Amino acid sequence: MPPAIALTIGGSDSGGGAGIQADLKTFLALQVHGCSAITCVTAQNTCGVTRVDPLPPASVLAQVEAVCGDLPVAAIKTGMLLNRGLIEATAAALEPLALPKLIDPVMVSRAGSPLLEADAIEAYRQLLLPQAELITPNLHEARLLGGGDGLDDAAAVERAAALLLELGPAAVLIKGGGLPSLRGHDYLLPRDGAGTWLRSIAVDTPHTHGSGCTLGAAITAGRARGLPLLEAVQAAKAYVEGGLRHALAIGAGQGPLCHWHPLLEAHG
Amino acid sequence: MPPAIALTIGGSDSGGGAGIQADLKTFLALQVHGCSAITCVTAQNTCGVTRVDPLPPASVLAQVEAVCGDLPVAAIKTGMLLNRGLIEATAAALEPLALPKLIDPVMVSRAGSPLLEADAIEAYRQLLLPQAELITPNLHEARLLGGGDGLDDAAAVERAAALLLELGPAAVLIKGGGLPSLRGHDYLLPRDGAGTWLRSIAVDTPHTHGSGCTLGAAITAGRARGLPLLEAVQAAKAYVEGGLRHALAIGAGQGPLCHWHPLLEAHG
Repeated sequence: MPPAIALTIGGSDSGGGAGIQADLKTFLALQVHGCSAITCVTAQNTCGVTRVDPLPPASVLAQVEAVCGDLPVAAIKTGMLLNRGLIEATAAALEPLALPKLIDPVMVSRAGSPLLEADAIEAYRQLLLPQAELITPNLHEARLLGGGDGLDDAAAVERAAALLLELGPAAVLIKGGGLPSLRGHDYLLPRDGAGTWLRSIAVDTPHTHGSGCTLGAAITAGRARGLPLLEAVQAAKAYVEGGLRHALAIGAGQGPLCHWHPLLEAHG
Repeated sequence: MPPAIALTIGGSDSGGGAGIQADLKTFLALQVHGCSAITCVTAQNTCGVTRVDPLPPASVLAQVEAVCGDLPVAAIKTGMLLNRGLIEATAAALEPLALPKLIDPVMVSRAGSPLLEADAIEAYRQLLLPQAELITPNLHEARLLGGGDGLDDAAAVERAAALLLELGPAAVLIKGGGLPSLRGHDYLLPRDGAGTWLRSIAVDTPHTHGSGCTLGAAITAGRARGLPLLEAVQAAKAYVEGGLRHALAIGAGQGPLCHWHPLLEAHG
Protein backbone atom coordinates (compact mmCIF):
# COMPACT_ATOMS: atom_id res chain seq x y z
CA MET A 1 0.00 0.00 0.00
CA PRO A 2 1.42 3.43 -0.86
CA PRO A 3 2.12 5.63 2.17
CA ALA A 4 0.04 8.67 3.06
CA ILE A 5 1.85 11.91 2.20
CA ALA A 6 1.50 15.28 3.94
CA LEU A 7 3.05 18.68 3.24
CA THR A 8 3.91 21.32 5.81
CA ILE A 9 4.58 24.95 4.86
CA GLY A 10 6.31 26.90 7.61
CA GLY A 11 9.43 28.07 9.37
CA SER A 12 12.50 26.08 10.31
CA ASP A 13 13.33 25.82 14.06
CA SER A 14 17.03 25.00 14.36
CA GLY A 15 16.40 23.59 17.84
CA GLY A 16 14.21 20.92 16.28
CA GLY A 17 11.27 21.19 18.66
CA ALA A 18 8.84 23.33 16.67
CA GLY A 19 8.27 24.50 13.09
CA ILE A 20 8.65 22.19 10.12
CA GLN A 21 10.96 20.02 12.24
CA ALA A 22 8.15 19.26 14.70
CA ASP A 23 5.78 18.66 11.79
CA LEU A 24 8.09 16.27 9.94
CA LYS A 25 8.89 14.38 13.13
CA THR A 26 5.19 14.06 13.91
CA PHE A 27 4.39 12.87 10.39
CA LEU A 28 7.13 10.23 10.67
CA ALA A 29 5.98 9.00 14.06
CA LEU A 30 2.50 8.57 12.57
CA GLN A 31 3.92 6.75 9.52
CA VAL A 32 3.15 9.51 7.04
CA HIS A 33 5.76 10.64 4.47
CA GLY A 34 6.42 14.29 5.23
CA CYS A 35 7.31 16.98 2.69
CA SER A 36 8.01 20.63 3.48
CA ALA A 37 8.12 24.11 1.97
CA ILE A 38 10.23 26.41 4.12
CA THR A 39 9.10 30.04 4.44
CA CYS A 40 11.85 31.26 6.76
CA VAL A 41 14.81 29.92 8.69
CA THR A 42 15.08 30.77 12.37
CA ALA A 43 18.10 30.46 14.64
CA GLN A 44 16.24 29.25 17.71
CA ASN A 45 16.65 27.21 20.86
CA THR A 46 14.58 26.45 23.95
CA CYS A 47 14.97 30.07 25.14
CA GLY A 48 13.87 31.95 22.02
CA VAL A 49 14.63 33.13 18.49
CA THR A 50 17.93 34.93 17.78
CA ARG A 51 17.68 35.41 14.00
CA VAL A 52 15.11 35.03 11.22
CA ASP A 53 15.93 34.77 7.49
CA PRO A 54 12.86 34.84 5.24
CA LEU A 55 12.98 32.92 1.96
CA PRO A 56 11.83 34.73 -1.20
CA PRO A 57 8.09 34.15 -1.79
CA ALA A 58 8.97 32.60 -5.18
CA SER A 59 10.95 29.91 -3.35
CA VAL A 60 7.86 28.87 -1.39
CA LEU A 61 5.87 28.60 -4.61
CA ALA A 62 8.65 26.55 -6.23
CA GLN A 63 8.86 24.21 -3.24
CA VAL A 64 5.11 23.59 -3.14
CA GLU A 65 4.99 23.07 -6.91
CA ALA A 66 7.96 20.66 -6.87
CA VAL A 67 6.24 18.58 -4.18
CA CYS A 68 2.64 18.68 -5.38
CA GLY A 69 3.59 18.33 -9.05
CA ASP A 70 5.25 14.99 -8.34
CA LEU A 71 3.80 13.42 -5.20
CA PRO A 72 0.19 12.55 -4.28
CA VAL A 73 -0.03 14.83 -1.25
CA ALA A 74 -3.19 14.09 0.77
CA ALA A 75 -3.23 16.93 3.32
CA ILE A 76 -1.45 20.23 3.91
CA LYS A 77 -0.61 22.28 7.01
CA THR A 78 0.70 25.82 7.26
CA GLY A 79 2.68 27.14 10.22
CA MET A 80 4.94 30.19 10.57
CA LEU A 81 4.47 32.40 7.49
CA LEU A 82 6.18 35.53 8.92
CA ASN A 83 5.02 38.29 6.58
CA ARG A 84 2.47 39.40 4.03
CA GLY A 85 4.53 38.38 0.98
CA LEU A 86 4.98 34.84 2.24
CA ILE A 87 1.28 34.57 3.14
CA GLU A 88 0.36 35.72 -0.37
CA ALA A 89 2.72 33.18 -1.97
CA THR A 90 1.39 30.40 0.27
CA ALA A 91 -2.21 31.30 -0.53
CA ALA A 92 -1.45 31.34 -4.26
CA ALA A 93 0.31 27.98 -4.07
CA LEU A 94 -2.56 26.40 -2.11
CA GLU A 95 -5.38 27.88 -4.18
CA PRO A 96 -5.39 25.26 -6.98
CA LEU A 97 -5.06 22.32 -4.55
CA ALA A 98 -8.35 20.67 -3.58
CA LEU A 99 -7.06 19.05 -0.39
CA PRO A 100 -7.70 19.30 3.35
CA LYS A 101 -5.77 22.39 4.47
CA LEU A 102 -5.03 23.03 8.13
CA ILE A 103 -4.09 26.66 8.81
CA ASP A 104 -2.27 27.12 12.13
CA PRO A 105 -2.15 30.93 12.41
CA VAL A 106 1.25 31.07 14.13
CA MET A 107 1.88 34.55 15.56
CA VAL A 108 3.94 34.31 18.76
CA SER A 109 6.11 31.45 20.06
CA ARG A 110 5.48 29.81 23.45
CA ALA A 111 8.72 31.47 24.58
CA GLY A 112 7.23 34.86 23.59
CA SER A 113 9.11 35.56 20.35
CA PRO A 114 6.99 37.30 17.68
CA LEU A 115 6.65 35.04 14.63
CA LEU A 116 4.42 37.18 12.38
CA GLU A 117 4.80 40.79 11.25
CA ALA A 118 1.96 43.02 12.45
CA ASP A 119 0.46 43.92 9.05
CA ALA A 120 0.10 40.27 8.09
CA ILE A 121 -2.99 39.40 10.11
CA GLU A 122 -5.33 40.89 7.51
CA ALA A 123 -3.66 38.73 4.81
CA TYR A 124 -4.42 35.66 6.92
CA ARG A 125 -8.07 36.68 7.22
CA GLN A 126 -8.52 37.44 3.54
CA LEU A 127 -6.37 34.84 1.78
CA LEU A 128 -5.90 31.79 3.96
CA LEU A 129 -8.79 31.36 6.36
CA PRO A 130 -11.36 31.00 3.54
CA GLN A 131 -9.34 28.09 2.08
CA ALA A 132 -9.02 26.23 5.38
CA GLU A 133 -10.68 22.98 6.31
CA LEU A 134 -9.56 23.74 9.86
CA ILE A 135 -7.88 26.63 11.65
CA THR A 136 -6.17 25.98 14.99
CA PRO A 137 -5.61 29.27 16.86
CA ASN A 138 -4.68 29.45 20.52
CA LEU A 139 -6.59 31.99 22.64
CA HIS A 140 -4.22 34.83 21.78
CA GLU A 141 -4.39 34.12 18.05
CA ALA A 142 -8.19 33.73 18.18
CA ARG A 143 -8.39 37.21 19.71
CA LEU A 144 -6.09 38.76 17.06
CA LEU A 145 -8.00 37.13 14.20
CA GLY A 146 -11.27 38.66 15.39
CA GLY A 147 -12.66 36.23 17.94
CA GLY A 148 -13.42 39.04 20.38
CA ASP A 149 -11.80 40.16 23.61
CA GLY A 150 -12.11 38.68 27.08
CA LEU A 151 -11.42 35.12 26.01
CA ASP A 152 -11.23 33.93 29.59
CA ASP A 153 -13.84 31.21 29.96
CA ALA A 154 -15.44 28.40 27.99
CA ALA A 155 -18.47 30.43 26.91
CA ALA A 156 -16.25 33.18 25.45
CA VAL A 157 -14.25 30.54 23.57
CA GLU A 158 -17.45 29.15 22.06
CA ARG A 159 -18.51 32.64 20.94
CA ALA A 160 -15.05 33.24 19.44
CA ALA A 161 -15.21 30.02 17.44
CA ALA A 162 -18.55 31.12 15.93
CA LEU A 163 -17.06 34.50 15.00
CA LEU A 164 -14.03 32.87 13.37
CA LEU A 165 -16.22 30.49 11.35
CA GLU A 166 -17.64 33.56 9.62
CA LEU A 167 -14.17 34.20 8.15
CA GLY A 168 -14.59 31.16 5.92
CA PRO A 169 -12.91 28.03 7.33
CA ALA A 170 -14.96 24.83 7.37
CA ALA A 171 -14.07 24.28 11.03
CA VAL A 172 -12.37 26.04 13.95
CA LEU A 173 -10.37 24.43 16.77
CA ILE A 174 -9.55 26.89 19.57
CA LYS A 175 -6.85 25.61 21.91
CA GLY A 176 -7.56 26.43 25.54
CA GLY A 177 -4.03 25.77 26.81
CA GLY A 178 -3.27 29.42 27.50
CA LEU A 179 -5.83 29.55 30.32
CA PRO A 180 -5.23 27.50 33.51
CA SER A 181 -8.89 26.50 33.73
CA LEU A 182 -8.89 25.25 30.12
CA ARG A 183 -5.54 23.42 30.01
CA GLY A 184 -5.84 20.39 27.74
CA HIS A 185 -9.33 21.50 26.67
CA ASP A 186 -9.88 22.47 23.04
CA TYR A 187 -13.13 23.50 21.37
CA LEU A 188 -13.92 22.17 17.89
CA LEU A 189 -16.69 23.89 15.93
CA PRO A 190 -17.42 22.65 12.38
CA ARG A 191 -19.58 24.66 9.98
CA ASP A 192 -21.94 21.76 9.51
CA GLY A 193 -22.40 20.43 13.02
CA ALA A 194 -22.41 21.06 16.75
CA GLY A 195 -19.42 22.28 18.75
CA THR A 196 -17.53 19.79 20.93
CA TRP A 197 -15.15 20.26 23.85
CA LEU A 198 -12.26 17.80 23.53
CA ARG A 199 -10.38 17.07 26.72
CA SER A 200 -7.03 15.46 27.30
CA ILE A 201 -5.14 15.04 30.54
CA ALA A 202 -3.12 18.20 31.21
CA VAL A 203 0.44 16.93 31.61
CA ASP A 204 2.37 18.88 34.22
CA THR A 205 5.61 19.85 32.44
CA PRO A 206 7.28 23.13 31.52
CA HIS A 207 8.64 21.43 28.37
CA THR A 208 5.93 22.28 25.86
CA HIS A 209 8.00 23.88 23.07
CA GLY A 210 6.37 22.97 19.77
CA SER A 211 3.18 21.47 21.19
CA GLY A 212 1.00 23.72 19.02
CA CYS A 213 2.86 22.77 15.83
CA THR A 214 2.76 19.13 16.85
CA LEU A 215 -0.99 19.11 17.42
CA GLY A 216 -1.62 20.63 13.99
CA ALA A 217 0.82 18.24 12.32
CA ALA A 218 -0.78 15.22 13.99
CA ILE A 219 -4.24 16.35 12.82
CA THR A 220 -2.84 16.78 9.30
CA ALA A 221 -1.29 13.30 9.43
CA GLY A 222 -4.66 11.86 10.46
CA ARG A 223 -6.42 13.61 7.61
CA ALA A 224 -3.71 12.41 5.18
CA ARG A 225 -4.44 8.86 6.38
CA GLY A 226 -8.15 9.37 5.77
CA LEU A 227 -9.49 9.88 9.29
CA PRO A 228 -12.58 12.10 9.59
CA LEU A 229 -11.80 15.48 11.15
CA LEU A 230 -13.11 14.77 14.66
CA GLU A 231 -11.23 11.48 14.89
CA ALA A 232 -8.09 13.11 13.52
CA VAL A 233 -8.27 15.79 16.24
CA GLN A 234 -8.87 13.21 18.98
CA ALA A 235 -5.97 11.03 17.81
CA ALA A 236 -3.74 14.11 17.56
CA LYS A 237 -4.54 15.15 21.11
CA ALA A 238 -3.57 11.68 22.30
CA TYR A 239 -0.27 11.91 20.37
CA VAL A 240 0.54 15.31 21.91
CA GLU A 241 -0.36 14.03 25.38
CA GLY A 242 2.08 11.13 24.93
CA GLY A 243 4.74 13.55 23.69
CA LEU A 244 4.29 15.76 26.74
CA ARG A 245 4.39 12.77 29.12
CA HIS A 246 7.85 11.93 27.72
CA ALA A 247 8.87 15.60 27.19
CA LEU A 248 12.60 16.27 26.82
CA ALA A 249 14.04 18.28 29.71
CA ILE A 250 16.86 19.75 27.62
CA GLY A 251 18.13 23.30 27.23
CA ALA A 252 17.85 26.28 29.53
CA GLY A 253 14.26 27.13 28.55
CA GLN A 254 11.20 25.19 27.45
CA GLY A 255 12.29 21.81 26.11
CA PRO A 256 10.41 20.07 23.29
CA LEU A 257 7.99 17.17 23.55
CA CYS A 258 9.23 13.70 22.69
CA HIS A 259 8.15 13.02 19.12
CA TRP A 260 9.25 9.38 19.07
CA HIS A 261 7.11 8.12 21.95
CA PRO A 262 5.24 5.60 19.74
CA LEU A 263 8.60 3.79 19.50
CA LEU A 264 8.94 3.74 23.30
CA GLU A 265 5.46 2.35 23.67
CA ALA A 266 6.00 -0.17 20.88
CA HIS A 267 9.13 -1.49 22.56
CA GLY A 268 7.48 -1.47 26.00
CA MET B 1 17.81 9.60 31.18
CA PRO B 2 18.30 12.65 28.95
CA PRO B 3 18.03 11.90 25.23
CA ALA B 4 21.00 11.90 22.88
CA ILE B 5 21.09 15.03 20.70
CA ALA B 6 22.54 15.35 17.19
CA LEU B 7 22.89 18.32 14.85
CA THR B 8 22.78 18.22 11.06
CA ILE B 9 24.04 21.08 8.90
CA GLY B 10 22.82 20.89 5.33
CA GLY B 11 20.28 21.63 2.65
CA SER B 12 16.52 21.29 2.82
CA ASP B 13 14.88 18.83 0.39
CA SER B 14 11.24 19.85 -0.02
CA GLY B 15 10.40 16.32 -1.15
CA GLY B 16 11.42 15.07 2.28
CA GLY B 17 13.57 12.16 1.17
CA ALA B 18 17.07 13.60 1.44
CA GLY B 19 18.87 16.55 3.07
CA ILE B 20 18.14 17.67 6.60
CA GLN B 21 14.70 16.05 6.29
CA ALA B 22 16.26 12.60 5.84
CA ASP B 23 18.66 13.33 8.68
CA LEU B 24 15.98 14.48 11.14
CA LYS B 25 13.75 11.54 10.24
CA THR B 26 16.65 9.14 10.77
CA PHE B 27 17.55 10.72 14.12
CA LEU B 28 13.93 10.39 15.25
CA ALA B 29 13.65 6.77 14.17
CA LEU B 30 16.79 6.05 16.21
CA GLN B 31 15.40 7.97 19.21
CA VAL B 32 17.84 10.86 19.00
CA HIS B 33 16.63 14.49 19.30
CA GLY B 34 17.56 16.13 16.00
CA CYS B 35 18.55 19.78 15.52
CA SER B 36 19.41 21.40 12.21
CA ALA B 37 21.22 24.34 10.64
CA ILE B 38 19.97 24.94 7.11
CA THR B 39 22.51 26.06 4.50
CA CYS B 40 20.19 26.27 1.51
CA VAL B 41 16.61 25.51 0.59
CA THR B 42 15.96 23.41 -2.50
CA ALA B 43 12.72 22.95 -4.40
CA GLN B 44 13.12 19.26 -5.12
CA ASN B 45 11.18 16.10 -5.80
CA THR B 46 11.94 12.53 -6.81
CA CYS B 47 12.98 13.73 -10.30
CA GLY B 48 15.45 16.46 -9.39
CA VAL B 49 16.10 19.98 -8.11
CA THR B 50 14.21 22.91 -9.67
CA ARG B 51 15.46 25.79 -7.49
CA VAL B 52 18.11 26.46 -4.84
CA ASP B 53 18.09 29.39 -2.40
CA PRO B 54 21.25 29.68 -0.30
CA LEU B 55 21.00 31.12 3.21
CA PRO B 56 23.50 33.84 4.20
CA PRO B 57 26.60 32.27 5.81
CA ALA B 58 25.87 34.33 8.96
CA SER B 59 22.55 32.51 9.29
CA VAL B 60 24.32 29.14 9.43
CA LEU B 61 26.62 30.45 12.16
CA ALA B 62 23.63 31.81 14.11
CA GLN B 63 21.74 28.52 13.81
CA VAL B 64 24.70 26.43 15.01
CA GLU B 65 25.38 28.85 17.86
CA ALA B 66 21.72 28.91 18.94
CA VAL B 67 21.68 25.10 19.08
CA CYS B 68 25.10 24.39 20.56
CA GLY B 69 24.91 27.31 23.00
CA ASP B 70 21.81 25.80 24.62
CA LEU B 71 21.68 22.05 24.02
CA PRO B 72 24.22 19.30 24.83
CA VAL B 73 24.78 18.19 21.23
CA ALA B 74 26.75 14.93 21.14
CA ALA B 75 27.53 14.51 17.42
CA ILE B 76 27.33 16.59 14.24
CA LYS B 77 26.87 15.80 10.57
CA THR B 78 27.28 18.04 7.54
CA GLY B 79 25.50 17.48 4.23
CA MET B 80 24.87 19.82 1.30
CA LEU B 81 26.94 22.99 1.79
CA LEU B 82 26.56 24.33 -1.77
CA ASN B 83 29.32 26.95 -2.00
CA ARG B 84 32.59 28.22 -0.59
CA GLY B 85 30.99 30.83 1.69
CA LEU B 86 28.73 28.28 3.34
CA ILE B 87 31.62 25.82 3.76
CA GLU B 88 33.69 28.55 5.42
CA ALA B 89 30.84 29.46 7.79
CA THR B 90 30.26 25.80 8.63
CA ALA B 91 33.96 25.22 9.28
CA ALA B 92 34.13 28.29 11.52
CA ALA B 93 31.03 27.20 13.46
CA LEU B 94 32.38 23.67 13.94
CA GLU B 95 35.94 24.65 14.82
CA PRO B 96 35.36 25.32 18.56
CA LEU B 97 33.22 22.19 19.05
CA ALA B 98 35.12 19.14 20.33
CA LEU B 99 32.58 16.58 19.13
CA PRO B 100 32.46 13.70 16.64
CA LYS B 101 31.94 15.35 13.24
CA LEU B 102 30.80 13.37 10.24
CA ILE B 103 31.47 15.18 6.95
CA ASP B 104 29.39 13.83 4.07
CA PRO B 105 30.95 15.66 1.09
CA VAL B 106 27.70 16.01 -0.88
CA MET B 107 28.41 17.06 -4.47
CA VAL B 108 25.82 15.54 -6.83
CA SER B 109 22.37 14.11 -6.07
CA ARG B 110 21.45 10.52 -6.96
CA ALA B 111 19.15 12.02 -9.59
CA GLY B 112 22.20 13.81 -11.09
CA SER B 113 21.57 17.37 -9.89
CA PRO B 114 24.78 19.26 -8.95
CA LEU B 115 24.71 20.14 -5.24
CA LEU B 116 28.09 21.88 -4.86
CA GLU B 117 29.63 24.73 -6.80
CA ALA B 118 32.84 23.74 -8.60
CA ASP B 119 35.28 25.99 -6.70
CA ALA B 120 34.16 24.65 -3.34
CA ILE B 121 36.00 21.32 -3.37
CA GLU B 122 39.25 22.94 -2.26
CA ALA B 123 37.42 24.52 0.70
CA TYR B 124 36.23 21.06 1.72
CA ARG B 125 39.78 19.72 1.59
CA GLN B 126 41.32 22.58 3.54
CA LEU B 127 38.66 23.49 6.10
CA LEU B 128 36.39 20.54 6.79
CA LEU B 129 38.19 17.26 6.16
CA PRO B 130 40.87 17.96 8.81
CA GLN B 131 38.12 18.43 11.45
CA ALA B 132 36.29 15.22 10.57
CA GLU B 133 36.07 12.10 12.68
CA LEU B 134 34.67 10.44 9.57
CA ILE B 135 34.13 11.38 5.94
CA THR B 136 31.64 9.40 3.86
CA PRO B 137 32.23 9.99 0.12
CA ASN B 138 30.73 7.85 -2.60
CA LEU B 139 33.07 6.76 -5.40
CA HIS B 140 32.49 9.94 -7.41
CA GLU B 141 33.13 12.19 -4.43
CA ALA B 142 36.20 10.16 -3.41
CA ARG B 143 37.60 10.78 -6.88
CA LEU B 144 36.89 14.54 -6.79
CA LEU B 145 38.42 14.91 -3.31
CA GLY B 146 41.68 13.36 -4.51
CA GLY B 147 41.26 9.62 -4.09
CA GLY B 148 42.64 8.96 -7.57
CA ASP B 149 41.06 7.92 -10.85
CA GLY B 150 39.92 4.50 -11.96
CA LEU B 151 37.95 3.73 -8.83
CA ASP B 152 36.47 0.61 -10.35
CA ASP B 153 37.44 -2.23 -8.05
CA ALA B 154 37.97 -3.00 -4.38
CA ALA B 155 41.73 -2.53 -4.49
CA ALA B 156 41.37 0.97 -6.00
CA VAL B 157 38.84 1.87 -3.29
CA GLU B 158 41.31 0.79 -0.60
CA ARG B 159 44.04 2.95 -2.19
CA ALA B 160 41.65 5.91 -2.41
CA ALA B 161 40.76 5.62 1.29
CA ALA B 162 44.45 5.76 2.19
CA LEU B 163 44.91 8.88 0.03
CA LEU B 164 41.89 10.60 1.61
CA LEU B 165 43.14 9.82 5.15
CA GLU B 166 46.14 12.04 4.35
CA LEU B 167 43.75 15.00 4.10
CA GLY B 168 43.21 14.84 7.84
CA PRO B 169 40.04 12.98 8.84
CA ALA B 170 40.36 10.34 11.57
CA ALA B 171 38.56 7.82 9.39
CA VAL B 172 37.25 7.38 5.84
CA LEU B 173 34.18 5.40 4.72
CA ILE B 174 33.99 5.01 0.94
CA LYS B 175 30.57 3.87 -0.25
CA GLY B 176 30.77 1.34 -3.05
CA GLY B 177 27.15 1.68 -4.17
CA GLY B 178 28.00 3.41 -7.45
CA LEU B 179 29.66 0.26 -8.82
CA PRO B 180 27.53 -2.85 -9.54
CA SER B 181 30.21 -5.19 -8.17
CA LEU B 182 30.40 -3.21 -4.90
CA ARG B 183 26.69 -2.55 -4.22
CA GLY B 184 26.07 -2.60 -0.48
CA HIS B 185 29.83 -2.85 0.18
CA ASP B 186 31.54 0.05 1.95
CA TYR B 187 35.17 0.33 3.00
CA LEU B 188 36.00 1.81 6.41
CA LEU B 189 39.59 2.86 7.04
CA PRO B 190 40.42 4.46 10.41
CA ARG B 191 43.71 6.29 10.97
CA ASP B 192 44.56 4.04 13.91
CA GLY B 193 43.61 0.59 12.68
CA ALA B 194 43.09 -1.78 9.79
CA GLY B 195 40.61 -1.25 6.98
CA THR B 196 37.38 -3.26 6.93
CA TRP B 197 34.90 -4.08 4.17
CA LEU B 198 31.37 -3.80 5.53
CA ARG B 199 28.72 -5.65 3.59
CA SER B 200 24.96 -5.37 3.64
CA ILE B 201 22.46 -7.10 1.42
CA ALA B 202 21.99 -5.03 -1.75
CA VAL B 203 18.24 -4.36 -1.85
CA ASP B 204 16.88 -4.39 -5.40
CA THR B 205 14.90 -1.12 -5.63
CA PRO B 206 15.14 2.01 -7.78
CA HIS B 207 13.87 4.03 -4.78
CA THR B 208 17.14 5.06 -3.18
CA HIS B 209 16.67 8.86 -2.95
CA GLY B 210 18.37 10.03 0.22
CA SER B 211 20.16 6.79 1.06
CA GLY B 212 23.53 8.54 1.32
CA CYS B 213 22.18 11.22 3.69
CA THR B 214 20.40 8.54 5.69
CA LEU B 215 23.52 6.42 6.15
CA GLY B 216 25.49 9.42 7.42
CA ALA B 217 22.65 10.47 9.72
CA ALA B 218 22.32 6.99 11.17
CA ILE B 219 26.08 6.85 11.85
CA THR B 220 25.83 10.28 13.53
CA ALA B 221 22.88 9.07 15.64
CA GLY B 222 24.91 6.06 16.75
CA ARG B 223 27.86 8.24 17.73
CA ALA B 224 25.48 10.61 19.59
CA ARG B 225 24.26 7.56 21.53
CA GLY B 226 27.83 6.59 22.37
CA LEU B 227 28.46 3.68 19.98
CA PRO B 228 32.08 3.21 18.86
CA LEU B 229 32.60 4.19 15.21
CA LEU B 230 32.66 0.68 13.72
CA GLU B 231 29.49 -0.34 15.56
CA ALA B 232 27.80 2.92 14.58
CA VAL B 233 28.58 2.25 10.90
CA GLN B 234 27.35 -1.34 11.12
CA ALA B 235 24.10 -0.31 12.82
CA ALA B 236 23.62 2.48 10.27
CA LYS B 237 24.02 0.08 7.37
CA ALA B 238 21.34 -2.14 8.90
CA TYR B 239 19.02 0.86 9.28
CA VAL B 240 19.51 1.87 5.63
CA GLU B 241 18.98 -1.71 4.50
CA GLY B 242 15.64 -1.78 6.35
CA GLY B 243 14.70 1.57 4.84
CA LEU B 244 15.43 0.31 1.34
CA ARG B 245 13.49 -2.92 1.95
CA HIS B 246 10.42 -0.78 2.71
CA ALA B 247 11.28 1.96 0.18
CA LEU B 248 8.44 4.27 -0.86
CA ALA B 249 7.47 3.87 -4.53
CA ILE B 250 6.15 7.42 -4.83
CA GLY B 251 6.74 10.12 -7.44
CA ALA B 252 7.83 9.87 -11.05
CA GLY B 253 11.53 9.41 -10.25
CA GLN B 254 13.54 7.80 -7.46
CA GLY B 255 11.37 7.51 -4.36
CA PRO B 256 12.82 7.80 -0.85
CA LEU B 257 13.55 5.02 1.61
CA CYS B 258 11.11 4.42 4.42
CA HIS B 259 12.49 6.17 7.48
CA TRP B 260 9.89 4.80 9.92
CA HIS B 261 10.58 1.10 9.41
CA PRO B 262 11.53 0.55 13.08
CA LEU B 263 7.85 1.29 13.84
CA LEU B 264 6.72 -1.32 11.31
CA GLU B 265 9.03 -3.89 12.83
CA ALA B 266 8.02 -2.94 16.36
CA HIS B 267 4.35 -3.43 15.54
CA GLY B 268 5.06 -6.64 13.59
